[in-house]
Amino acid sequence: MVRIDMNCDMGESFGRYTIGADEQIITSITSANIACGFHAGDPETMKKTVRLALDHSVSIGAHPGLDDLKGFGRRTMSITAEEVYDLVVYQIGALHGFVLAEGAVLKHVKPHGALYNMAAVKKDLAEAIAKAIYKINPELILYGLSGSELIKAGNKFGLKTANEVFADRTYQRDGTLTPRHQEGALIKDENIAIAQVIKMVVDQKVITSGHEVPITADTICIHGDGEHSVEFAKKINRALQDNGIEVKGL
Amino acid sequence: MVRIDMNCDMGESFGRYTIGADEQIITSITSANIACGFHAGDPETMKKTVRLALDHSVSIGAHPGLDDLKGFGRRTMSITAEEVYDLVVYQIGALHGFVLAEGAVLKHVKPHGALYNMAAVKKDLAEAIAKAIYKINPELILYGLSGSELIKAGNKFGLKTANEVFADRTYQRDGTLTPRHQEGALIKDENIAIAQVIKMVVDQKVITSGHEVPITADTICIHGDGEHSVEFAKKINRALQDNGIEVKGL
Amino acid sequence: MVRIDMNCDMGESFGRYTIGADEQIITSITSANIACGFHAGDPETMKKTVRLALDHSVSIGAHPGLDDLKGFGRRTMSITAEEVYDLVVYQIGALHGFVLAEGAVLKHVKPHGALYNMAAVKKDLAEAIAKAIYKINPELILYGLSGSELIKAGNKFGLKTANEVFADRTYQRDGTLTPRHQEGALIKDENIAIAQVIKMVVDQKVITSGHEVPITADTICIHGDGEHSVEFAKKINRALQDNGIEVKGL
Amino acid sequence: MVRIDMNCDMGESFGRYTIGADEQIITSITSANIACGFHAGDPETMKKTVRLALDHSVSIGAHPGLDDLKGFGRRTMSITAEEVYDLVVYQIGALHGFVLAEGAVLKHVKPHGALYNMAAVKKDLAEAIAKAIYKINPELILYGLSGSELIKAGNKFGLKTANEVFADRTYQRDGTLTPRHQEGALIKDENIAIAQVIKMVVDQKVITSGHEVPITADTICIHGDGEHSVEFAKKINRALQDNGIEVKGL
Repeated sequence: MVRIDMNCDMGESFGRYTIGADEQIITSITSANIACGFHAGDPETMKKTVRLALDHSVSIGAHPGLDDLKGFGRRTMSITAEEVYDLVVYQIGALHGFVLAEGAVLKHVKPHGALYNMAAVKKDLAEAIAKAIYKINPELILYGLSGSELIKAGNKFGLKTANEVFADRTYQRDGTLTPRHQEGALIKDENIAIAQVIKMVVDQKVITSGHEVPITADTICIHGDGEHSVEFAKKINRALQDNGIEVKGL
Repeated sequence: MVRIDMNCDMGESFGRYTIGADEQIITSITSANIACGFHAGDPETMKKTVRLALDHSVSIGAHPGLDDLKGFGRRTMSITAEEVYDLVVYQIGALHGFVLAEGAVLKHVKPHGALYNMAAVKKDLAEAIAKAIYKINPELILYGLSGSELIKAGNKFGLKTANEVFADRTYQRDGTLTPRHQEGALIKDENIAIAQVIKMVVDQKVITSGHEVPITADTICIHGDGEHSVEFAKKINRALQDNGIEVKGL
Repeated sequence: MVRIDMNCDMGESFGRYTIGADEQIITSITSANIACGFHAGDPETMKKTVRLALDHSVSIGAHPGLDDLKGFGRRTMSITAEEVYDLVVYQIGALHGFVLAEGAVLKHVKPHGALYNMAAVKKDLAEAIAKAIYKINPELILYGLSGSELIKAGNKFGLKTANEVFADRTYQRDGTLTPRHQEGALIKDENIAIAQVIKMVVDQKVITSGHEVPITADTICIHGDGEHSVEFAKKINRALQDNGIEVKGL
Repeated sequence: MVRIDMNCDMGESFGRYTIGADEQIITSITSANIACGFHAGDPETMKKTVRLALDHSVSIGAHPGLDDLKGFGRRTMSITAEEVYDLVVYQIGALHGFVLAEGAVLKHVKPHGALYNMAAVKKDLAEAIAKAIYKINPELILYGLSGSELIKAGNKFGLKTANEVFADRTYQRDGTLTPRHQEGALIKDENIAIAQVIKMVVDQKVITSGHEVPITADTICIHGDGEHSVEFAKKINRALQDNGIEVKGL
C-alpha cells in the first residue's frame, strides 16, 4: 500500500503573540515540526505543542531556524557552517528537553525558512545540519526539500531522510521548485494542487510544462497559517485516503 | 576521607563579547555550570565550554537563568512557577544537545543569579525547577544554596542535591548569607575566606558573630570573572588538598 | 464645555505577529500610545502606526515598556531608577525618529504595563521617567494613573500631566484601582462602565461601595485588543458626546 | 590648511559585556560613531558614550547596524530597502534621544558592519539610509566608504557626506578596498599605514600596485578595539599634525 507523511510547521506563537491554527490542523497531519525559539516559538509554546502532538499521536520533530524573530527566520544571512551546526544542536536540544520531560520521542528535524532554503543548495550548510543531527541522535529523520543538497547530506551521514514535496507550488524541468517571485510559482486551484500531490505520491512524478519529471515524495508540506489552511489540509488528507494512500508518519 | 566539589559558572561569553577566564579557572575546579543562552552564553560558546570541560575531566552542568541578557540574569522578575519550569526545561535541553553531540554526560543543574536567589526562598519556583530537572532526567544533581528551599525541593522530588557554600561571603546566625548590601557581607581577606571554607568542609560549620552555626557543604562556589579569581581558585584548591580534603566532582 | 481625551495603546505588533485592531479603533480615540520596540512593536510597525495616527489626526505618544518582549512588558522587574531613565530616553527617542521623519509632533508619553504600574507607586522610578521626558522635551505630556506617584513626579518636573482613568475597572475608597485579582475588580456590564466614565469626566468623581470619591480624569484608557474592544470604544465615544462632552486630545 | 576628521566606532559594550577602550581612544579622535542597541550598545552605554564625547568635544554620530547582536552586525542579511529605512530611523532616533537629553547636537550617521558594506554597493539600500537621515534631519552628515554608493546616495538627497578612508587597508586600482580575505588586504606596518593616510589626506591619492589612484578622504576610520588601537590612534593623530594637517571634526 502506498503511504505518505503529512507534516506541518507548528508552535510558532511567541509570548502574547499567536500564529497558526495548531489545534485544528493537528488532526489532519502525521508529523509536527515544532519551532524552537529562534525564528519563532518560546518555551511555553514548545511544551504545549509537544503535548498537543502527543495527544494526537502525531510525530514530533524539531524545526530549527535562524536567530531572527523579527524576520521570522525568513531572511537569508551570511552564516558559517559552524554557526549552523551550533544553532541546530542548540535548538534540537531545547526541543528535546520538552520531549524528554513528556516521556516522548523526538522523531525528526526539519530546518525552517531561510535555513531550509540555504541548506537545499549549499553543501557545507547542509552537511553542518546533517552532522548536528547525527551527533545528537543518528536515529532522527532529516526532512528536506526533495532531491536537495540537504537530503544528500543526510544520506552521506547515514541518516534516514524524508524528501518533502509541496502541494501548492509548481516545479521546474530539473525537479526544483519554481521560485516564488516567478509567475506561476503558486498553484491556487485546490483541485490541481491535490491532483499534483496524488501524482507525486503514487507515481513519484510531477508534471511541469507538460512533461513528467521524476520526484521523490516521502512527506507533504502542509501550511498551517493561511486563511483556508485548515480546510485545505483536511481536503488533501481525505483525497489521499480516497485514492487508497495511507497517511502515516515515517 | 573528606571530599568536596568546586564549581564555577562558565561559558558566559556572548557573540563577540567575552567574560570570564574559563580556560584558566577550569584547572582548579571539578564542576562547570555552563550558561545556556538566556542570561549569557550562546550556542558556539556552549559547544566550546562543553569541550573544555571534557578536556579537563570536569563535570558538566547546565546553568539556566532568566531571559535577560541585558541584565545578565541578575534582575528579579515576577515570573510564574510555570514560566520557570518552561525556561529551565528549555535551557537544560539546549545544553544537553551539546553534551549529547560530544558523547558526554550531563551531571548537574545550577540556576543562575536572580533565578538562583528566588528559588532559594520561594517554594513554588524551587519546586518548578526540581520538577523540570526530574522530568528531564532524575539522575541530575540539583545545586542550590545550602539549606535553601531549592535544596528542599530537590529532596522532595528525590533528586540528589548539592548544598553550595561560599568562600567569600559571611553567614548569619540562621545559616543564611548576609545580604550583599549589608556591611561585612563580603570576606575580602583571602586567608579568612580559605579558613572559612575549610571549616565548612571539614566541620560542616560556619562561624558567624563568634558563634558556630551548622551548615551543609557539598560544593564550593568559585567565581570566574573577578580580577584575582584565577589565583584565588588555585589557592583554595591547594589549601583544601593541603588540609587532606579530596577535591572531586559529585 | 467639558472635554476628555481617549487614549489607546497601539503599534504592538511585532514582525510577522499581529496584535490589536489599530485601524478600527483609531477612529474612536484622540491619542495613540505607540509601542517602541521593547515590550512590543518594531521599527516598521512604529512607522506605520505614526502614519495611521497622522491620517486620523490622533495625537502621537510614546509608549515605552520594559525590555521583555516575551512577557509583553507585564512582568515586574527589579530595575533601578537609572535603568528606567535610560530605557525611557531610548524609546522616546526611537519613536521620535519616526515622528520627525513624518514631519509630525510627539505629544505625550505613557509608560506600559509593569513600568506603568511600578511608576504609579515607586517615587524614584516615577521621577526617573519624568526626568527622562523633561530632558528630551519639557513640552511632552506625561500620562499616568490618576493621582499616582507618576503624576506627582510629572508635576514636580513641571510637566503637563494627564490623569488616566479606566472605564472597566472599579476603584477603592482611597481612589486607587481595585487590584485585578480581587473580586469585582472588573466591570463587565458595558452600561455601568460607560456610566462610570461619564461620572468621572463630568463630576470628577467615582462611586465605590456606595461612596463618591474624588478622582481626576483627564484621559480615558481604551483597550485595543479585546474581543469587543472596537465596539466598546465606539460606544464610549458616542456616549460621551451624547452627554455633551467634547472628545478631544490634550 | 589641510584638515581631516578622525572617527571611531564607540559605545559597543552591552550589559555586563565590555568592548573597546572608549575612554582612552576618545582623546585621539574628532568624531564618535555611537552604537544604537541593535548590533551592539544599550541605553546605558549610549548615555555614557554621549557624555564622554561631550566631555572631550568630540562630534556625536549615530552608528546604526543590523539587528544581530550575536553576530555584532557583521553578517550580511537579505534585507529590504524599507527594512533598512525603518531600522536606521529607529536607531538614529534612539541615539538622538540621549543627545537631546544632554542638550547636545547630533552631527553625523555612519552605518555599521554589514549594513555599511551592503550600502557601499547596493544603491537601493544606500538610498534608504540617505532618505532616513534626510527625513529626520537634513543637516546630518552621512559617513560612508569613500566613493561608494552610500556617498552617492547622500549627495543625491542633498546631504553633506564624509568620504571615509582606512589607514590599515590596501586599495585596488579602481579605488575600492582590497577584500579582507585577499592577501595583502591589511597593512600591518604602522609606518606604511601612516604614510598612506597622510598621502590620502594631503594629495587625495592612494598608491596601489605602484600606481597613484585618486581618492576622496574626508575622514579616517580609527579602530577602537584592537590590541594596539589606542597607541596607533595616537600615532596617526600626531603624524597628521606633524605634517601640518589640522585634525578637526566636520
